[in-house]
Amino acid sequence: MSRFISSKFNSLTPYTPGEQPQERKYIKLNTNESPFPPSPMAQRLARQSAGDLQLYSDPECKALVKIASQKLRIAEDEILFTNGSDEILNFAFSAFCDKDNPAVFANITYGFYKVFAEYNGVPYSEIPLKDDFTLDINDYIGINKTVFIANPNAPTGIALSKGEIERIVSSNKNNVVIVDEAYVDFGGESCTDLIHKYDNLLVCQTFSKSRSLAGGRLGFGVGCKELIADLNTIKYSTNPYNVNRMTMSAGIGALCDDKYFVTNCKKIKDTRKYTEEKLKELGFVMTDSKANFIFAKHSKIGGKELYLALKEKGVLIRHFETELLKDYNRITIGSDEQMQAFIDILKGVLEEMI
Amino acid sequence: MSRFISSKFNSLTPYTPGEQPQERKYIKLNTNESPFPPSPMAQRLARQSAGDLQLYSDPECKALVKIASQKLRIAEDEILFTNGSDEILNFAFSAFCDKDNPAVFANITYGFYKVFAEYNGVPYSEIPLKDDFTLDINDYIGINKTVFIANPNAPTGIALSKGEIERIVSSNKNNVVIVDEAYVDFGGESCTDLIHKYDNLLVCQTFSKSRSLAGGRLGFGVGCKELIADLNTIKYSTNPYNVNRMTMSAGIGALCDDKYFVTNCKKIKDTRKYTEEKLKELGFVMTDSKANFIFAKHSKIGGKELYLALKEKGVLIRHFETELLKDYNRITIGSDEQMQAFIDILKGVLEEMI
Repeated sequence: MSRFISSKFNSLTPYTPGEQPQERKYIKLNTNESPFPPSPMAQRLARQSAGDLQLYSDPECKALVKIASQKLRIAEDEILFTNGSDEILNFAFSAFCDKDNPAVFANITYGFYKVFAEYNGVPYSEIPLKDDFTLDINDYIGINKTVFIANPNAPTGIALSKGEIERIVSSNKNNVVIVDEAYVDFGGESCTDLIHKYDNLLVCQTFSKSRSLAGGRLGFGVGCKELIADLNTIKYSTNPYNVNRMTMSAGIGALCDDKYFVTNCKKIKDTRKYTEEKLKELGFVMTDSKANFIFAKHSKIGGKELYLALKEKGVLIRHFETELLKDYNRITIGSDEQMQAFIDILKGVLEEMI
Repeated sequence: MSRFISSKFNSLTPYTPGEQPQERKYIKLNTNESPFPPSPMAQRLARQSAGDLQLYSDPECKALVKIASQKLRIAEDEILFTNGSDEILNFAFSAFCDKDNPAVFANITYGFYKVFAEYNGVPYSEIPLKDDFTLDINDYIGINKTVFIANPNAPTGIALSKGEIERIVSSNKNNVVIVDEAYVDFGGESCTDLIHKYDNLLVCQTFSKSRSLAGGRLGFGVGCKELIADLNTIKYSTNPYNVNRMTMSAGIGALCDDKYFVTNCKKIKDTRKYTEEKLKELGFVMTDSKANFIFAKHSKIGGKELYLALKEKGVLIRHFETELLKDYNRITIGSDEQMQAFIDILKGVLEEMI
């Protein structure tokens, strides 16, 4: 840090993204990327737009908004696209939280919520999950704070039903409830259609996982038009041209290619089931994941030891150092071939360690 | 606005980007875009990376940083890339301004500075330019505030010399001086090498103008490593993967293709000179622009009338409604063909109006 940084950031601890090592080729199961390339249509449209980059992108993202509104059955003023879903989440912390409207989220969830809150100078509290990592929705009924819920949750993959989300939303009419559906396409129930029933619901999604566009950076939020107008106020006060031309085109292609999307989501779910069965045979316990990852621990080996042993053998999984998570690891669902290779390597590692 | 937005944004007025009309084909001279497509190398590299978008982009932008550090003769920890230069400017307002370190900038400059200050809750003051739109550097000597200077300035195009910038920087050792060099490649003097002499200098640049990547969204800041570390704290607390893979690749191509860059900058300067001469013949007065635009007024016609008359005829230029600027318009330098067409249409308009 320099001597110039504002004292308000003295205690700010930035988010630590998953490792992106460049020096060695790993079986990379640590950042919940899709094992499948972007839809051919997404690739083609992105490539086409590379020739027009001398012109600014459309700050209103009209063409993308139009397709998305049709696919999601919402109006065009009920959606806002951002540079990844981290951007819309940060906008939501900025717009809808302050000292009178503190943020609340689970003690085990997407680790960035805490950073967004600290960055925006927002008071926040964390509500402990139950010992089995499930969330008790009664903790959130009528809580009168700005609620952030990842559904399915990270890094556990456990999902709430739409009915449970609706109970939280309907009981907090004076605060926004933000439902972060980054992983919803792998088995969760989306709440996007509830935005027409509740003016205090913002649903965020990303193209990074199920649409294979992590490196394209595209996320969005849907909510009633007043909430979206608020988020546009933030966007136009920070970075109006936040979505570049190529990403906008890739997003249009990804949305249009429904078949590719549905097929890939099904493959991930099938491969998740296969991997879960193999892991159980090898002595792991795990949560009921509806996401493109498994959150698992072994009865005889610590999470960090396993993570390091696998890294040594060329497999990257995600380990979290915190006390509540340290026995577990988060394992992204890759292709069938990747997961078979992972299981084979894991067997060897376990034989050496036990 | 919704009833949920934080009261801290009650008086926030977002930035208004230049018009991006989709309904009609204009000769578009209103947003300072390059008339030239991106370098063929930039296009090729961007297209190549469209196939790998399922993988996150490198949050450290290592490959891009490496090339840039060689081209700019700085160390790799002295530069940070962002999603357009608006993002690095917003980061700078966030990191280096607060109630103890208010921001200061000219009353006529990039209109976004005021919005960034308001968004970040930062007190700010505006120092009037002289009547001829020049900046008196004495107003900034030892001012003990966080200084933002667009050099060349917008929308006037008037540039300070490197020596003048250095006097401001050296006299404000306890505050950061941010020099926004968005337009520097068209005739200004860059201060990037002064970062090795002053730890309180941040120089921001963009790929939007001289590198033909407005629609790719790529900007950067250079400063001593401690300032860059501060800005990374902001980045990793808001959007770690802020630069997507395709843009990163396009940036590498644009930086490598020096010849294309130098040729295009020279063309713009030549065309600016041609356009200035024609405008003078037609009764315009203008500032001494070192940017890819001309800031001009006609002795007999108001700025808004002229803007509207040209729009009617299919030419878009940028008009600003504010009292100090309303007699003028900002005219982007396009290709020779565009500027000849513009002059021809302008002649017709003037004949009708005078």
